Amino acid sequence: MIKVGIIGATGYAGGELVRILMNHKEAEIVWYGSRSYIDKKYYEVYQNMFEIVEDICKDDNLQELAEQVDVIFTATPQGFLAGLLTEEILSKVKIVDLSADYRIKDVATYEKWYGIEHKSPQFIEEAVYGLCEVNRGKITDKTRLVANPGCYTTCSILTAYPLVKEGLIDVDTLIVDAKSGTSGAGRGAKVPNLFCEVNENIKAYGVASHRHTPEIEEQLGYAGNCNVTINFTPHLVPMNRGILATEYATLKKKADGSLPTYEEVKAVYDKYYKEEKFVRVLDKGVCPETKWVEGSNYVDINFVIDERTGRIIMMGALDNLVKGAAGQAVQNMNILFGLKESEGLELVPCFP
Amino acid sequence: MIKVGIIGATGYAGGELVRILMNHKEAEIVWYGSRSYIDKKYYEVYQNMFEIVEDICKDDNLQELAEQVDVIFTATPQGFLAGLLTEEILSKVKIVDLSADYRIKDVATYEKWYGIEHKSPQFIEEAVYGLCEVNRGKITDKTRLVANPGCYTTCSILTAYPLVKEGLIDVDTLIVDAKSGTSGAGRGAKVPNLFCEVNENIKAYGVASHRHTPEIEEQLGYAGNCNVTINFTPHLVPMNRGILATEYATLKKKADGSLPTYEEVKAVYDKYYKEEKFVRVLDKGVCPETKWVEGSNYVDINFVIDERTGRIIMMGALDNLVKGAAGQAVQNMNILFGLKESEGLELVPCFP
Amino acid sequence: MIKVGIIGATGYAGGELVRILMNHKEAEIVWYGSRSYIDKKYYEVYQNMFEIVEDICKDDNLQELAEQVDVIFTATPQGFLAGLLTEEILSKVKIVDLSADYRIKDVATYEKWYGIEHKSPQFIEEAVYGLCEVNRGKITDKTRLVANPGCYTTCSILTAYPLVKEGLIDVDTLIVDAKSGTSGAGRGAKVPNLFCEVNENIKAYGVASHRHTPEIEEQLGYAGNCNVTINFTPHLVPMNRGILATEYATLKKKADGSLPTYEEVKAVYDKYYKEEKFVRVLDKGVCPETKWVEGSNYVDINFVIDERTGRIIMMGALDNLVKGAAGQAVQNMNILFGLKESEGLELVPCFP
Amino acid sequence: MIKVGIIGATGYAGGELVRILMNHKEAEIVWYGSRSYIDKKYYEVYQNMFEIVEDICKDDNLQELAEQVDVIFTATPQGFLAGLLTEEILSKVKIVDLSADYRIKDVATYEKWYGIEHKSPQFIEEAVYGLCEVNRGKITDKTRLVANPGCYTTCSILTAYPLVKEGLIDVDTLIVDAKSGTSGAGRGAKVPNLFCEVNENIKAYGVASHRHTPEIEEQLGYAGNCNVTINFTPHLVPMNRGILATEYATLKKKADGSLPTYEEVKAVYDKYYKEEKFVRVLDKGVCPETKWVEGSNYVDINFVIDERTGRIIMMGALDNLVKGAAGQAVQNMNILFGLKESEGLELVPCFP
Repeated sequence: MIKVGIIGATGYAGGELVRILMNHKEAEIVWYGSRSYIDKKYYEVYQNMFEIVEDICKDDNLQELAEQVDVIFTATPQGFLAGLLTEEILSKVKIVDLSADYRIKDVATYEKWYGIEHKSPQFIEEAVYGLCEVNRGKITDKTRLVANPGCYTTCSILTAYPLVKEGLIDVDTLIVDAKSGTSGAGRGAKVPNLFCEVNENIKAYGVASHRHTPEIEEQLGYAGNCNVTINFTPHLVPMNRGILATEYATLKKKADGSLPTYEEVKAVYDKYYKEEKFVRVLDKGVCPETKWVEGSNYVDINFVIDERTGRIIMMGALDNLVKGAAGQAVQNMNILFGLKESEGLELVPCFP
Repeated sequence: MIKVGIIGATGYAGGELVRILMNHKEAEIVWYGSRSYIDKKYYEVYQNMFEIVEDICKDDNLQELAEQVDVIFTATPQGFLAGLLTEEILSKVKIVDLSADYRIKDVATYEKWYGIEHKSPQFIEEAVYGLCEVNRGKITDKTRLVANPGCYTTCSILTAYPLVKEGLIDVDTLIVDAKSGTSGAGRGAKVPNLFCEVNENIKAYGVASHRHTPEIEEQLGYAGNCNVTINFTPHLVPMNRGILATEYATLKKKADGSLPTYEEVKAVYDKYYKEEKFVRVLDKGVCPETKWVEGSNYVDINFVIDERTGRIIMMGALDNLVKGAAGQAVQNMNILFGLKESEGLELVPCFP
Repeated sequence: MIKVGIIGATGYAGGELVRILMNHKEAEIVWYGSRSYIDKKYYEVYQNMFEIVEDICKDDNLQELAEQVDVIFTATPQGFLAGLLTEEILSKVKIVDLSADYRIKDVATYEKWYGIEHKSPQFIEEAVYGLCEVNRGKITDKTRLVANPGCYTTCSILTAYPLVKEGLIDVDTLIVDAKSGTSGAGRGAKVPNLFCEVNENIKAYGVASHRHTPEIEEQLGYAGNCNVTINFTPHLVPMNRGILATEYATLKKKADGSLPTYEEVKAVYDKYYKEEKFVRVLDKGVCPETKWVEGSNYVDINFVIDERTGRIIMMGALDNLVKGAAGQAVQNMNILFGLKESEGLELVPCFP
Repeated sequence: MIKVGIIGATGYAGGELVRILMNHKEAEIVWYGSRSYIDKKYYEVYQNMFEIVEDICKDDNLQELAEQVDVIFTATPQGFLAGLLTEEILSKVKIVDLSADYRIKDVATYEKWYGIEHKSPQFIEEAVYGLCEVNRGKITDKTRLVANPGCYTTCSILTAYPLVKEGLIDVDTLIVDAKSGTSGAGRGAKVPNLFCEVNENIKAYGVASHRHTPEIEEQLGYAGNCNVTINFTPHLVPMNRGILATEYATLKKKADGSLPTYEEVKAVYDKYYKEEKFVRVLDKGVCPETKWVEGSNYVDINFVIDERTGRIIMMGALDNLVKGAAGQAVQNMNILFGLKESEGLELVPCFP
């Protein structure tokens, strides 16, 4: 049984880790870290866990935690883990970090977009970017630190990845228009996240400045072996869960000057995703909807080719708290420990 | 492996049966009955099941079904099963009926409240009312027909049951004010159930005439060994899932003229529910919320004693599609076949 | 032109006052008081007012305000006005107080339910309880202080008022089960009011202890000329606006032992409300829905007599920010200044 | 007093026409046309109109209507008006058509995108495309037929219009990603519009094939004096009202190779919109939100220049039933009859 510690267990992503791990056969949570609720019963914070979790919330003590557990999930604000991580800790425990601290390889880029100094850049190099479908081969039994991708980024990258990798689209034309449920904004008590402010409303935010932009660019850059600069625009949608990314790019023409056909593009998606349990490329003509993946680890993807404009419209949908956070984190843990990758993640989407 | 057939598999309750049974270790669905979608792939109706269910929808042929399966779930309109059920069918297969056809023992009462003739009253007597926590002892390996309780009724009855059973309240004063999410209204295309009509709105409906009233009265009558006549008022709430019942009754005074204490009432609840996995009596002062049980088979219950009025306010919350329909149906199946009662139902509530 | 000052202009009720007064022909706002946003442009807090309101937010200076305006609306927390009000202020300006400070005539009751000391009980006596349809006769040109009723109370009282007044129901049996949209909880940044906590959820709160209870009891007591003790249970509903009160009471039997008929009860409602512009008693069989009054000053009311239990179920719906707060406050202002009572309040409900 | 007839008065746009015209000082509705509800009281369909509208619903008789009214609003399905319109009718009455029948000048384009034959193409030429801020000069006292723009199109065009007109963007790069509330889908009873299907969900639809595409292209083509071919992707959002258009285009570089500055672009917006009552270009950095215009005739617009990609991100928000349908229709009526353009439209947005 793998012993698990969670730091930030009372945020929404932390809560989802708990929900998922309750049905994981080879892992058990032994540390519910939550600085805000120390000594409070966990179920008093999340009543869904009444009579399920009896533990109390503990402090965020990485040192002590490293002694007691096999893996730590850090569902914490940016900069938290970077400020505390040491070689000693990493020598004792594996860490799956749900924050952005080790996602971006270039420290300057991190510091520019996040506006904070990175306190432990020496661990960035070894951290594996845990986008499982792309990087699972890089996660070995020697891996100590996994940087779990962001919610928008997981959705945005997986939706376009095969086409970038195979060079079907002109990456300079890529535009990602993303829509997210409100749990992505976290559980902090802020006026803009109040029910009455979000309900019956939609808005863009972080236009041309959202922090997930460089993460998407870096990863798609690896895929396409080129520099990628995109527009990424997130929107806040009045729903709890779900991200939908609508992506636009100009298709490269074939040698004869024609556009790739639906079948040709589909074949490229299938090449990468046909064997992937958690990526579902939908039937022709079916648009992904966030509701169809709610509560599950799936990403639903599809595309439409517009002959009039020469562009392809790609769409991807996932549950931001599952594949966009806790689910993928558990998937990474499974890979790290050589378990079946889908253990604990056989979650059937809940509808309606 | 128990072979399962579902009739009405493309309604919301039918869809929830499919979701739950996907993770049931000892049952498999072999017949997805849906007259409206015959020959269509099931996942084309419910895209959450894409790459999970490959079956097509079949006709509602009870005869043929009886030959092929061990148990049939009928998630069908009132009168459907009553119109088709025969001794021959019941001799071959067990049936868990999610409709109201066999819930009410008195045919006249059924016909009055439902406004239709009962076509097979001869089976009413043998049908067991499948409120598991109350009647599991009546479900044996010889039981052929289980009448699965209604969503409002499950919630309303379980919330008051111990107090009626033990005679703590004056049942003539019982008032049930219930609030339900919109999935309870089914998937029929009707104007009052359109998004724009339900959203940002709340209303009562079926005031003093809702069909779940006699069902609650009958069952609480058995508990209290008396006639029970109540007010039951359902309300439509702009959310997908969940029922909250707020119930009011006058507490009987003790011999010394005082009201029972919190501890005394709590002890009565504990007597009936402490060992019940799916009934959670919350800590003092915590009000049940539908969100805390969403997606799970739990009923959360609590109460407040009002010294000023001498009344007790009882509150119960459940997910109308799970404990209020498909979950309890699976629980009944588990009992019918001697399986662990919670098999397939270890569903952790999903929050947020 | 009546000069208006608002204290608490950036709360939800304050914002609604601004919205309504924009189209009021005989009043203009000259002071937008908001301690939290002093010197900030009002429209920067509420962007709906962009290019409509150019004013900046000012301090909550009652003294200065009293010099500059004809009427002050205080949409402030309990205790605020009571702590500042003086004879000097009242000698210069009329006040419509949207808080609870002067609603309850008995200081001890106020202090018990609100848990704070009342700092200026000397003004309670002269304050008129501004439930317009009941008390408009008490508001004269000499009235200086109007206690604007609470949102729940306006709905709860008006729904039952004619029957209590005329003695048709046994007031000791009265139970009010109320459901409110989330704007009633105010704009404070609190976790329980976050979108993800409220959405897809319903719960009771303040069970047997909500502060609007004694206010309802007092006013219905005046109507019935008796002591009234009720159960009042508020619920939080995932919608922005709207309150629905479902009320239960035992009908008094007539001399011949029969219940009053629908027509008899309807006649009593009509006696009080037929000429009332803002109270609409719906056609037989139509249940009030909050959506049908949204954005307007209407209260929609109806009832059902249950012959089986001898009870009447009364239902009332209003917009908590309009008739439940700002609309009624403007209605009171209109009465205070001898204007047409509906001036500025000819708001057609917005659907959907 | 202008006599108004509405055909399609019981759809959502028709209902909004009624709401708006109730407070219009120079117009009165004398004909509530609704084939589905003939002889039913209008308020029985829309209870918000109880005690406000006493009229019954009448048939859709254009001939008779032309005799009785000064202006007809047709809020009807595509093809309806085109199938009935005659020279005789137009000689007697002005028509503001809220359908698409006369919006597109090229019949072939209309027939291709709408998939129906146009039955009266002879009136297309004279119809004025009623985008008021752009075309008000074309509406004279001789104008008989106004084609009221679509909801998506009004939002999409106005958001980009000044930049296309002044040649600041490369129109071939224009992409419109639009999000709409569900009232845009109408009041038809269809499963995809049920509460449980829309709530907690977001999806794209009509990708690369939505009918508003050619309308946007045609109008922006006039503005830019060039052919325009765009990508337009609508999305369904779980809210009643509101459209947000997020638009992307590459900025043309200035002679010195640099991008236009914020101030330069702002000046272009101001040139066209500074004097426009119903178009609000927000302060720098403020993103439009649909909630801030709800219930009003405003369009809120803003933009961000992304130096990294050389693109401009434009955003526009409106209420699809007001400026996107009924409000603009009334605005057109006001222009047609020489009234103050904002008569009846001084609607303050309702928040929250």
